[in-house]
Amino acid sequence: MSFTTEQQPGVCEQAPAATKGFTLNHSMLRVKDPKVSLDFYTRVLGMRLLRKLDFPEMSFSLYFLAQAEEAAMAPQDVGERTAWTFAQRGILELTHNWGTENDTEFKYHDGNAKPQGFGHICISVPDLDAAVRWFDENGVTYVKRPEQGKMKDVAFIKDADGYWIEIVEPARLAKLGRPA
Amino acid sequence: MSFTTEQQPGVCEQAPAATKGFTLNHSMLRVKDPKVSLDFYTRVLGMRLLRKLDFPEMSFSLYFLAQAEEAAMAPQDVGERTAWTFAQRGILELTHNWGTENDTEFKYHDGNAKPQGFGHICISVPDLDAAVRWFDENGVTYVKRPEQGKMKDVAFIKDADGYWIEIVEPARLAKLGRPA
Repeated sequence: MSFTTEQQPGVCEQAPAATKGFTLNHSMLRVKDPKVSLDFYTRVLGMRLLRKLDFPEMSFSLYFLAQAEEAAMAPQDVGERTAWTFAQRGILELTHNWGTENDTEFKYHDGNAKPQGFGHICISVPDLDAAVRWFDENGVTYVKRPEQGKMKDVAFIKDADGYWIEIVEPARLAKLGRPA
Repeated sequence: MSFTTEQQPGVCEQAPAATKGFTLNHSMLRVKDPKVSLDFYTRVLGMRLLRKLDFPEMSFSLYFLAQAEEAAMAPQDVGERTAWTFAQRGILELTHNWGTENDTEFKYHDGNAKPQGFGHICISVPDLDAAVRWFDENGVTYVKRPEQGKMKDVAFIKDADGYWIEIVEPARLAKLGRPA
């Protein structure tokens, strides 16, 4: 039998037929300077840029990123790749409102300082210790190293705008939320 | 030849070997009342609850959701399913800080009002017109219907906390960002 859903108050017993094919495609974060963010996400986190879309009449550009394994499946044709990008899961969209990169005072809100809302994105890695070494080599800023705080085996780093990125190794988290 | 990356200032030509296996696992949003949010995400958007994790010593619970197709592949064993959850792409994590649901004044920040940061999550759907009918049947609040504003073929709805959710049909977006 395949897994259906954990039951909790509010949970619908079965996914309604009208929702068939719905896919959580992306999360969007605004970034101050795409050059700095693209370096961070493509070099430090190994993501690939699937598409940049420019909207000159509204003075912004969008950058769609995926991990290398998924990007390797993307079509070469630009139009096909745009449509393909919107059909995937786990895409990151960065929005650049033109000009923010030249304003030294400009800063986006990370959602963890007040007022709170959005918390973080999460990257799962095959080996947390190796990932921490890689982040240290690259001078990445930590919110929390794996050995700090109450949640062992979980790290939080910051991206170029200060958004939090959780780093986890799935195999180390199997016990989470179970009786000790 | 498979797709590697679009080149833009800042983009790393090749994904470094140290990032192999990195996966964009989830995005986390804080929610005021999990019962209301779970109804919205499991009924209106057809997601399934993979795991609820409770942290009583810190007075919060986490809810991990995936679309039905992915959830059908989740292991039945609870520990295995926890580890599996953290290895997937495109998971939604909802954080509930206990007690917020009983505070009538309490409200999370959507990231689009000032101060800005996080913008939205996006659900891609096989048929945008059918999805709009479904949302209308369910009394969903719109930020923008597909026919409104400059971005035709794109809708934005609000979740139970007011976070924005973009709704797109991939095939309709192939022309985006190309010369008219």
